[in-house]
Amino acid sequence: MTTGATLRREPRLVTLEGGEGAGKSTVLAALRAELERDVRVTCTREPGGTPLAEQIRTLLLDPTHEPPCDRTELLLMFASRAQLVAQVITPALERGDWVLSDRFTDASHAYQGGGRGCDPRLIDVLEHEFVGIEPGLTLLLDVPVDVGLARARGRGGSDRIESERLEFFERVRSAYLRRAAAQPSRFFVIDATQPPAAVAEHAVDALRRYRERSA
Amino acid sequence: MTTGATLRREPRLVTLEGGEGAGKSTVLAALRAELERDVRVTCTREPGGTPLAEQIRTLLLDPTHEPPCDRTELLLMFASRAQLVAQVITPALERGDWVLSDRFTDASHAYQGGGRGCDPRLIDVLEHEFVGIEPGLTLLLDVPVDVGLARARGRGGSDRIESERLEFFERVRSAYLRRAAAQPSRFFVIDATQPPAAVAEHAVDALRRYRERSA
Ligand SMILES: Nc1ncnc2c1ncn2[C@@H]1O[C@H](COP(=O)(O)OP(=O)(O)O)[C@@H](O)[C@H]1O
Ligand SMILES: Nc1ncnc2c1ncn2[C@@H]1O[C@H](COP(=O)(O)OP(=O)(O)O)[C@@H](O)[C@H]1O
Ligand SMILES: [Mg+2]
Ligand SMILES: [Mg+2]
Repeated sequence: MTTGATLRREPRLVTLEGGEGAGKSTVLAALRAELERDVRVTCTREPGGTPLAEQIRTLLLDPTHEPPCDRTELLLMFASRAQLVAQVITPALERGDWVLSDRFTDASHAYQGGGRGCDPRLIDVLEHEFVGIEPGLTLLLDVPVDVGLARARGRGGSDRIESERLEFFERVRSAYLRRAAAQPSRFFVIDATQPPAAVAEHAVDALRRYRERSA
Repeated sequence: MTTGATLRREPRLVTLEGGEGAGKSTVLAALRAELERDVRVTCTREPGGTPLAEQIRTLLLDPTHEPPCDRTELLLMFASRAQLVAQVITPALERGDWVLSDRFTDASHAYQGGGRGCDPRLIDVLEHEFVGIEPGLTLLLDVPVDVGLARARGRGGSDRIESERLEFFERVRSAYLRRAAAQPSRFFVIDATQPPAAVAEHAVDALRRYRERSA
């Protein structure tokens, strides 16, 4: 399985990745404040980010729906992402904004690939054909699975994916770390067991150094 | 773009294809009655056919939702189909039923491929990787676009796809006919401008001869 399409790296697209309760939403706010000092920022999240994509998110995560089988889950994730890229991310980049996304394609490599065991070459084909872009910078917030889950459960009720077994999340974490190791020019891994202010400081620091490098 | 997976032909899977108002739902009832004389039959339709897939259908067709972009539409169609195959078609075939489906993968080649212009090799990859099976017999009900649309509009309000322009449906019709010509061992084309009883008779006849051939 190969594909003719190539991924375009988007320097102003910055993504946050990590397991449940790693602190992505918390860090996103700090990155947004840092960027808004001098540029316009569009923030979004996955799955979701447009009205249609948010409805796909509900089908994916709401435990009252018929559970999608693994292949349906993979296709729905990419359907949501294709819509988000077309409706939100591409227009924002075209008007000169920076874009911060709480998860992006790396999450499919980690969850549907590592977690569910979907063929990584198939995920590559979907990424190349239906997404077409990759972030310039990806911050991976890494915490042991039990720490992240304890934090996330402190937030309240669990969705369908948050209710998976520990082994599932261990595979997700390993897949994220393998991907970060394989693509060091794009990934920056942060030890997210540190207190929120320290994690945010590392993230803002990484963003500043990235902007200096690319200036 | 190539794929390692191969399609398995399922002799007891029979599909009905054709444009809006061609008469698929009408003919399905006749084929069902014919089969039920001596075998068990599972009937389904696309997009939809499971509770989750029917919700995907709503996202695809309900004109009050944000319209999916072409690539989102293609992925949602295959998400619905992957779910239908896993939850309904494969279990039915495994317990020995015949399966009659009002549309299947050929509809994506015709609508998303011919109609929207999605890359046919990409649709092939999705078919091989996420569907994996093809019908033993496909009856294509062919009518001029204006005839079919007049019939379908007689049925009442139009969904998002039924509201497309005439040129769109001309491309869909041509794509169906090209596909039938390229795969004569599987397709049987019926002139569906004939009265309903004549169309049903041709369809039942084709099914009988198919069963004799494969017996
Ligand atoms: N570094 C941290 N240390 C302790 N708790 C944290 C940390 N970062 C976030 N939290 C808390 O953990 C919970 C999950 O954080 P959140 O940012 O929602 O994670 P995510 O978006 O990655 O699921 C929240 O209650 C948040 O306040
Ligand atoms: N061969 C036919 N000639 C005239 N009208 C037909 C014929 N077949 C179906 N119809 C009518 O046309 C309309 C659409 O038929 P239907 O079976 O719902 O088409 P489809 O399922 O292909 O959209 C219905 O009102 C049906 O009664
Ligand atoms: Mg979050
Ligand atoms: Mg019908």
